[in-house]
Amino acid sequence: MFGITPSARLRPSPYYEATVAEGVRSFTTYNQMLMPTGYGHPDQEYWRLMNGVSQWDVAVERQVQIDGPDAAELVRILSPRDLRKQVVGQGKYVPMCNHAGVLINDPILLKLSENKFWFSIADSNIWFWAQAIAAERGLRVQVSEPDVSPLALQGPRAVEVVEALFGDWVRQLRYFWFRETELQGIPVVLARSGWSKQGGYEIYLMDGSRGTELWNLVREAGRRWDIGPGNPNLCERIESGLLSYGGDTDGTTNPFEVRLGSYVDLGVADDVIGIAALRQIKAQGVARRQLGVVMEGAAPTQPSFHWHPIHRDGRRVGHLTNGVWSYRLTRNIGFGLVSSECEAGDAVSVHQAGKVIDAQLVELPFL
Amino acid sequence: MFGITPSARLRPSPYYEATVAEGVRSFTTYNQMLMPTGYGHPDQEYWRLMNGVSQWDVAVERQVQIDGPDAAELVRILSPRDLRKQVVGQGKYVPMCNHAGVLINDPILLKLSENKFWFSIADSNIWFWAQAIAAERGLRVQVSEPDVSPLALQGPRAVEVVEALFGDWVRQLRYFWFRETELQGIPVVLARSGWSKQGGYEIYLMDGSRGTELWNLVREAGRRWDIGPGNPNLCERIESGLLSYGGDTDGTTNPFEVRLGSYVDLGVADDVIGIAALRQIKAQGVARRQLGVVMEGAAPTQPSFHWHPIHRDGRRVGHLTNGVWSYRLTRNIGFGLVSSECEAGDAVSVHQAGKVIDAQLVELPFL
Repeated sequence: MFGITPSARLRPSPYYEATVAEGVRSFTTYNQMLMPTGYGHPDQEYWRLMNGVSQWDVAVERQVQIDGPDAAELVRILSPRDLRKQVVGQGKYVPMCNHAGVLINDPILLKLSENKFWFSIADSNIWFWAQAIAAERGLRVQVSEPDVSPLALQGPRAVEVVEALFGDWVRQLRYFWFRETELQGIPVVLARSGWSKQGGYEIYLMDGSRGTELWNLVREAGRRWDIGPGNPNLCERIESGLLSYGGDTDGTTNPFEVRLGSYVDLGVADDVIGIAALRQIKAQGVARRQLGVVMEGAAPTQPSFHWHPIHRDGRRVGHLTNGVWSYRLTRNIGFGLVSSECEAGDAVSVHQAGKVIDAQLVELPFL
Repeated sequence: MFGITPSARLRPSPYYEATVAEGVRSFTTYNQMLMPTGYGHPDQEYWRLMNGVSQWDVAVERQVQIDGPDAAELVRILSPRDLRKQVVGQGKYVPMCNHAGVLINDPILLKLSENKFWFSIADSNIWFWAQAIAAERGLRVQVSEPDVSPLALQGPRAVEVVEALFGDWVRQLRYFWFRETELQGIPVVLARSGWSKQGGYEIYLMDGSRGTELWNLVREAGRRWDIGPGNPNLCERIESGLLSYGGDTDGTTNPFEVRLGSYVDLGVADDVIGIAALRQIKAQGVARRQLGVVMEGAAPTQPSFHWHPIHRDGRRVGHLTNGVWSYRLTRNIGFGLVSSECEAGDAVSVHQAGKVIDAQLVELPFL
């Protein structure tokens, strides 16, 4: 693995010192910040997520705060999803598009009050986007990056750790709902959410100077359930069919291509950004679709910076956008972004690092 | 140094394979792409830039292409600099601001024709920004990321290598001017530019499939002048006073704070984004300014993900935004973003990793 050179362009997380103390070995960058990607024991980190509880520094899930009298109006214009029933304390997954219907992020939108929202974003600059739209439409809002940094607890035992920390009300919290609260005086938002399908919570720290303190409080509370450090897990997220914006999408991907069509409401008002284009795409049908890829061979594949061509009947029909060794399927699997003419069951080949690997397309999720 | 985990969110450069063959050891990320940051011989890489010629993969300097009948109009609206005298074939350095006058990038603007421009950008998402403004103002333009990837030759011998490759016309090319041409059939733009003060050129490759071929052509031509691999050099750029957007700036920095006031023309039209705010800032005066920092001590400082507090008279007055061992000054130096009340000559202290280092503020550039 290549080294990552320190630079002030790449901001550390409030949990940086804590993750270094935990023995972090590697990082990725995301929203121009560092995110831990491994602590040296990948098998153990995977099975801890599946069977126990894993503690993740996901401060890179930054918040784009929209605040002010026109906040709800701006949020409505930015979201091709009907938000009329969203209430304070509820989060919603929102595929965000540009005017051409191209996916530019897939945040969770948290409604903190009638006049204050957070887009908890994937890896692209929605501050600039939202500022531009707000200013050009003359809306009375502030678009800012508040001092808010999520820490995730994921896995089947997460609920017990969170209950020990916050009380038994956390069991009643519904998926994607949240509550502002505190932990030994540390201001946080507790949400039932997280980038895995193993269940869990995200604690949104609202005071970056207390990152190590929060990390250690969670660590201590989790000791009974053998908590340990981890991170958004490539294997689990692929097995579970979770999309990575920017990894599984490119500069022309629309929501319908990547299984997000159910989060788009074509009946929203005409001034919602991208909705006219999305209606047209829906009417015409998409050129590409996302399917699972199951590869032959018993040698675990390595993560890659590249997409790899997928061929069917001797012709390129798309790309493998990610690939990983599945601990549960004991096969290499990944996502294909392929021509719409492809179907689950098709025999294909993946062209990767000079090798041709036989594979089959399957429906997602894998598990 | 921590490892960087491969991910398709972080795109490789067309020169990736060539730089791996050269022995690249470490990377940073920039515009969600990988940029080499070292080949294992930092002293040698620095002195090669100062005395010879260094070959850099700077494909991360992406182009935001503005193309169409209203291209010049959009470019004018995005630029708080008077561009009326810019002609085809000329580049201009343009501090780009949001509506509040905050710096959001500092690209070089290349005018390719009356209806086609490239913003050759620093590390922030100007595609989203330009798309939002264009769509909201109803301008007839395409905003895209073309297949264009600069390779830089920097250092006093760069001119000889570029002459050997392209012919003696390159000596007449003025600073920041460029010409579309080709090299053994590879389409390129040759510009006299680069992120150092040691002189040189940037070859904008316009066919990403030919990165290795171009890299090797340049390498062969440079052999006579002992060319070798390098990258934008932290030491040289700090000695020379070059700004790093995102590293030396934060979410409230305006151009006047960081010595870019001479690139802002307050007389441009009122519909230029940010100009009203910039006029107001100029009239009121800035709260911060950028000065050089010279530190005591003979132990070379290490690059950092953090800004470090600067104190004067026992009170925090700003931050050291970067720091490096200067080979020529044989001292640790860096940039301070400090209160406007600070002046060159002031004695200060830098608080870094639990240590307090005596230092002095000086004018920039250092050399």
